[in-house]
Amino acid sequence: MPWTVTLDDVEAIAVGSGILGTGGGGNPYLGKLQLRRHLEEGRSVRVLAVDDIAPDALGCGIGGMGAPTVGYEKLPAGTEMVAAVEALARYAGRPLDFVVPGEIGGANGIVPLIVGALTGLPVVDADPMGRAFPELQMDTFMINGVRPSPFALADVHGHAVIFDRVTDPLWAERLARATTIGMGGSAALAMPLVTGRQVKDFGIPGTLSLARRLGRAVLQARARHASPVPAILAEVPGVHLLDGKVVDVERRTVQGFARGRVRVEGLDRFQGAVLEIEFQNEYLVARRDGRVEVTTPDLICVIDADTGEPVSTEVLRYGLRVSVLGLAAPRQLKTPAALEVVGPRAFGYDVEFRPLPGDLLARPETRRPAPAEAAGPMA
Amino acid sequence: MPWTVTLDDVEAIAVGSGILGTGGGGNPYLGKLQLRRHLEEGRSVRVLAVDDIAPDALGCGIGGMGAPTVGYEKLPAGTEMVAAVEALARYAGRPLDFVVPGEIGGANGIVPLIVGALTGLPVVDADPMGRAFPELQMDTFMINGVRPSPFALADVHGHAVIFDRVTDPLWAERLARATTIGMGGSAALAMPLVTGRQVKDFGIPGTLSLARRLGRAVLQARARHASPVPAILAEVPGVHLLDGKVVDVERRTVQGFARGRVRVEGLDRFQGAVLEIEFQNEYLVARRDGRVEVTTPDLICVIDADTGEPVSTEVLRYGLRVSVLGLAAPRQLKTPAALEVVGPRAFGYDVEFRPLPGDLLARPETRRPAPAEAAGPMA
Repeated sequence: MPWTVTLDDVEAIAVGSGILGTGGGGNPYLGKLQLRRHLEEGRSVRVLAVDDIAPDALGCGIGGMGAPTVGYEKLPAGTEMVAAVEALARYAGRPLDFVVPGEIGGANGIVPLIVGALTGLPVVDADPMGRAFPELQMDTFMINGVRPSPFALADVHGHAVIFDRVTDPLWAERLARATTIGMGGSAALAMPLVTGRQVKDFGIPGTLSLARRLGRAVLQARARHASPVPAILAEVPGVHLLDGKVVDVERRTVQGFARGRVRVEGLDRFQGAVLEIEFQNEYLVARRDGRVEVTTPDLICVIDADTGEPVSTEVLRYGLRVSVLGLAAPRQLKTPAALEVVGPRAFGYDVEFRPLPGDLLARPETRRPAPAEAAGPMA
Repeated sequence: MPWTVTLDDVEAIAVGSGILGTGGGGNPYLGKLQLRRHLEEGRSVRVLAVDDIAPDALGCGIGGMGAPTVGYEKLPAGTEMVAAVEALARYAGRPLDFVVPGEIGGANGIVPLIVGALTGLPVVDADPMGRAFPELQMDTFMINGVRPSPFALADVHGHAVIFDRVTDPLWAERLARATTIGMGGSAALAMPLVTGRQVKDFGIPGTLSLARRLGRAVLQARARHASPVPAILAEVPGVHLLDGKVVDVERRTVQGFARGRVRVEGLDRFQGAVLEIEFQNEYLVARRDGRVEVTTPDLICVIDADTGEPVSTEVLRYGLRVSVLGLAAPRQLKTPAALEVVGPRAFGYDVEFRPLPGDLLARPETRRPAPAEAAGPMA
């Protein structure tokens, strides 16, 4: 059923989408401030469940494109997101009925709500990733044959570009990436144009609610001074990989992507263990003591050990105390067709995908008692 | 009055637009073969004078975008030109009435005729450059305030992109360049969308006829085994800068442009003189014995000393015997507003523009007897 986004929801979704961002998707912080201001000024955002939209309704995905590195210096205005949606509506020759997050992870979990606030369009509680991914063909719409074009890019200067005929998702990625670089390294992407039917058939339903639930759990744990790790693992199936300290970060920006690796040395009960994570905007492969533990599409989430705030690949630095979790990907990302696009080999890693048990969107069946939670407030 | 393009016209226009290409604009050779095939198969191309088009008719500029270097390896299909025009018509929501060359120089003098052959649209005998220039804001439509958007890019794979809202010509250049690089370094550009009124007010009329006239003059000189130089200078106002041998070429492809310089040592009556020409896709500044002789927007044309074939910056090589001419730019490129965009300083050269006398589109008033012509056939 439909719900209206409250100020508390904004805080929770920002934290939850940060976690689902698995290190990428951009920092939700700025978007959160913008969205709060819009709500405080009396605008509102309505969220529709997938079941609430008509099969013949027309909408589009919306999100930011570009290396998160750029987004930290070149602030999004919000208006570029609206400009991209409007360009697509102009092209379609009719007003749109809804927007759907292009990816739920990171800033892109908040962006669609800003568009909802500014345009009045309802936001669908679903997305085609259930997390963040670095490239635009890595989504369940594309994986299931939805055509990428028409789609639109817009920038903070008000420029809008419509990709009219681009049938191959890899070409869509390539052309949109080149244009985004021309736009200064970041842009708003309205893509794809989808019917309600397509969202129902190919979207991952409930991911906006999931971000809110995860965020609430972390915020509540923080209020209790409890570790966020068990709070998260009570909401979604996954494993606690390590608590430790960042001891090395290798990072470079290549062709619009933030690539690199981070090394975390275990502390407390993980003393002596070493975790290495490779990333391309998002964390993609985690090895503990040299053995692959979690790979894409399962989610590798790094959070600040004290606050539970998600740690993106951009803010990794020596000495940071972090907890690292692996979360089971949504089932829609684990089909053979999906794994060809979002499995480790699609990113050039010569490793098998060994899925963590469960589905991100199904709560864990048995809630494991977690030591920190049992022990009460953290030291 | 309207005319229909003959096979002889195709040969002449290819040579003439090569000369007007001033080293750039792409090699007309492949386009010429395509266009000939279309005419031989029974298609036809109708050319309209500027006076023949209605003020409220709607059309667009058409040409190729990208470094000529790329065009030599990645052959144009012709269909991408039609795809770009069709994308723009789709966006405009109505069929177009005409196309106009985006630049008359190089391959771009032939491309609009191919579009005319394939679509049946008439081609207007005008263009907004009267030559070739490396960047898309360097045209008399943009200089006189015609908005660049909407415009369209398309590639040989059938991808089409519409630049919906880009009001600043420099941004249009930047975004189109980035997208062209994403398309593999060359693309078809349909730009701008113009009315008949705008073509009449801001276009340079008669440039397609001029290319044909220049080409005919060169072909006739070649048939007589006479030097093409006096034949050219009988048609357009200009100077004979040097005959000589290419002794040094410095060339690099930078951000989609072919940049460099060429050094020519004088022979025969130019013995002892040295000409250096700097280029950015096109020849832009010519110095003889260290003194600036001709600069953009005046045309610097390098032709094969034997055949009169235009020598583009791409095919410059050690040992080539060439004749170099400077031709007076069309008056529309010599206004203060135009010189800010196409004068030497716009390209980063700290030199004054000292115009050659005359206007490219006005025949020289007195035909100077040229030595080679007076002497009959060349040795």
